[in-house]
Amino acid sequence: MVIVDIHTHIYPPTFVSLLRSRTTVPYIRAFPDAPDSSRLIILPGEDDPATPSTSRGRPVGPQYWDIVEKIAFMDTHKIDVSVISLANPWLDFLPAHEAGEAARRINDDVDGLCARYPGRLYAFGTLPLSAPAETVVAEVERLAGMKHMRGIIMGTSGLGQGLDDPALDPIYAALERHGQVVFLHPHYGLPASVYGPRASEYGHVLPLALGFPLETTIAVTRMLLSGVWDRFRNLQVLIAHSGGTLPFLAGRIESCIEHDGHLKGEGKLEGRRSVWDVLQKNIYLDAVIYSEVGLKAAVDASGPDRLLFGTDHPFFPPLEDEAKEWTSVNTNYQAIKVGFSGDEKSVHDVLGNNAVRILKLDGIHS
Amino acid sequence: MVIVDIHTHIYPPTFVSLLRSRTTVPYIRAFPDAPDSSRLIILPGEDDPATPSTSRGRPVGPQYWDIVEKIAFMDTHKIDVSVISLANPWLDFLPAHEAGEAARRINDDVDGLCARYPGRLYAFGTLPLSAPAETVVAEVERLAGMKHMRGIIMGTSGLGQGLDDPALDPIYAALERHGQVVFLHPHYGLPASVYGPRASEYGHVLPLALGFPLETTIAVTRMLLSGVWDRFRNLQVLIAHSGGTLPFLAGRIESCIEHDGHLKGEGKLEGRRSVWDVLQKNIYLDAVIYSEVGLKAAVDASGPDRLLFGTDHPFFPPLEDEAKEWTSVNTNYQAIKVGFSGDEKSVHDVLGNNAVRILKLDGIHS
Repeated sequence: MVIVDIHTHIYPPTFVSLLRSRTTVPYIRAFPDAPDSSRLIILPGEDDPATPSTSRGRPVGPQYWDIVEKIAFMDTHKIDVSVISLANPWLDFLPAHEAGEAARRINDDVDGLCARYPGRLYAFGTLPLSAPAETVVAEVERLAGMKHMRGIIMGTSGLGQGLDDPALDPIYAALERHGQVVFLHPHYGLPASVYGPRASEYGHVLPLALGFPLETTIAVTRMLLSGVWDRFRNLQVLIAHSGGTLPFLAGRIESCIEHDGHLKGEGKLEGRRSVWDVLQKNIYLDAVIYSEVGLKAAVDASGPDRLLFGTDHPFFPPLEDEAKEWTSVNTNYQAIKVGFSGDEKSVHDVLGNNAVRILKLDGIHS
Repeated sequence: MVIVDIHTHIYPPTFVSLLRSRTTVPYIRAFPDAPDSSRLIILPGEDDPATPSTSRGRPVGPQYWDIVEKIAFMDTHKIDVSVISLANPWLDFLPAHEAGEAARRINDDVDGLCARYPGRLYAFGTLPLSAPAETVVAEVERLAGMKHMRGIIMGTSGLGQGLDDPALDPIYAALERHGQVVFLHPHYGLPASVYGPRASEYGHVLPLALGFPLETTIAVTRMLLSGVWDRFRNLQVLIAHSGGTLPFLAGRIESCIEHDGHLKGEGKLEGRRSVWDVLQKNIYLDAVIYSEVGLKAAVDASGPDRLLFGTDHPFFPPLEDEAKEWTSVNTNYQAIKVGFSGDEKSVHDVLGNNAVRILKLDGIHS
């Protein structure tokens, strides 16, 4: 049995330097009342001085940037291979003229980290999405030839107007042409107003537990509605956190489309691919869902051959200093074992075989 | 076998008059380019003159207010009993001094409609939530004594600050004391910005398919985090659209709570009830989810004895004029039959027996 973690993030040294050099979100900083604690601030408002110190971003340390820590984490949790990816917000925030060079430097950096542990590390590359489309396409082409790269990771803003923006078509075309998997990952969440006036009392729970998957669901539904998968029928997208909430809401989305008088009037209901068809042919889901209820819905929606184990490392570490294994990781292991109880083949497929096959992890055998 | 529809809305004549008398959302109006078509405008921006005519609110007719049409719909779809409820946005928009009287008038009106069809109609009452808390509590007490009332329907804004507002405690206490089920239903959706610049091209799909269930999920998670069910351990809440996305995200919510440094620091992790415990003891889900994938997740989360059939009538009518049966209704019937394939007892429980037991529909026998 081989275990592959396809949802595991890295802040390579070049990216950490960039974040430390900044003074607005996203950035890494200390606060005057805790000068020895570096905090990673990636969500708007997390650096508000009125925020309780325990809610200001998150403590950041070597687990974020030291590849030795990643390998140790993998060993502790019996993970054979990790497909690492830059964490959010990637390079979305860079000015256009800096993005191309930053992406090349960071992708080289990440590929170099993989080279240090042959057979144990692969990666999803990062695109310079604030640069002109031709710069982005050039990086897609370059990544396709890099030894450890197996696709790209991308947020939900695209070129700034969302993933249903027709200006993304040349980029989708390049990704499809090179058979590169798009790892779609949230970052922006939802406007703070939706969490109400007491949100800060709940720590990070509302933006993390809900903002991320709800953002993801909206992004992928916009892709569906704009016909991305009608134009790029072989584009493969791996959706973080088991699709946000797409498996659960697919029926409602499909029903709302079929009952929409405007879409019907525009002739948009004819010849369209259903949400279910796209789920079963173009979408992969990770198994980062923390319950067998969600896991089973993900499998029912996409099939056991399209679900892939992940950890979300280095996020969701144990709160207890002495803990060795991570509860967040074991909860997802457990969901797979209980969800597929009595079906060892599917357990093995989800834990590793699907990733080996889909991402062409050459030389890895179960 | 008895079939009970617990998610079915009515705009009684008193409410329709109120909506026709208004000139801002929510209201009923015609547009100059289609003077013969009354449109119900309930979501912000649906009346924007730049909106294509087919996306301006929704056509409204006797199915919204004529109880004879409701009974005909029930007969067509073999529904024995309906538990009707005022549709969104209820009375949320009324000035404080008008709300109490309007609620009494509308609740009397709805109770009177039920009286016309003995044994076939029950109702969830409406609360005057913009009025002072004592006015709301008085209406809860009054509803508890009305012949056909079996609980109340409520949106996510509460007294204007959300359902995690401690000012709601006297109202939750009154509802718990009288064993009245709260039917929690969305209305406000999400800020339009999250749907991006091309949202109007997609008709109503994004706000209806996603805005509603995501709003619901946020509201119920805020209730969980604020400890509503720790203070009111017998408060029973029926959540529309199978819980929004709560069944799918329950694992992630639970994991984010257990990994939150701020909540731990505040001592809020000790003695708390888990999301799963609340799901299985305090939450009922309707089966308005349009797929067996979602239906199974709802059952896995709450149990087959807590799931109740619904239609969402008069919304999601067929687009074809000649259609007799509604696809939206049959999709939900089908999901129950396929989801519980081989388990006739659960099919009967979800279609009607659960509602008869939970809502004490006296004199109805399967």
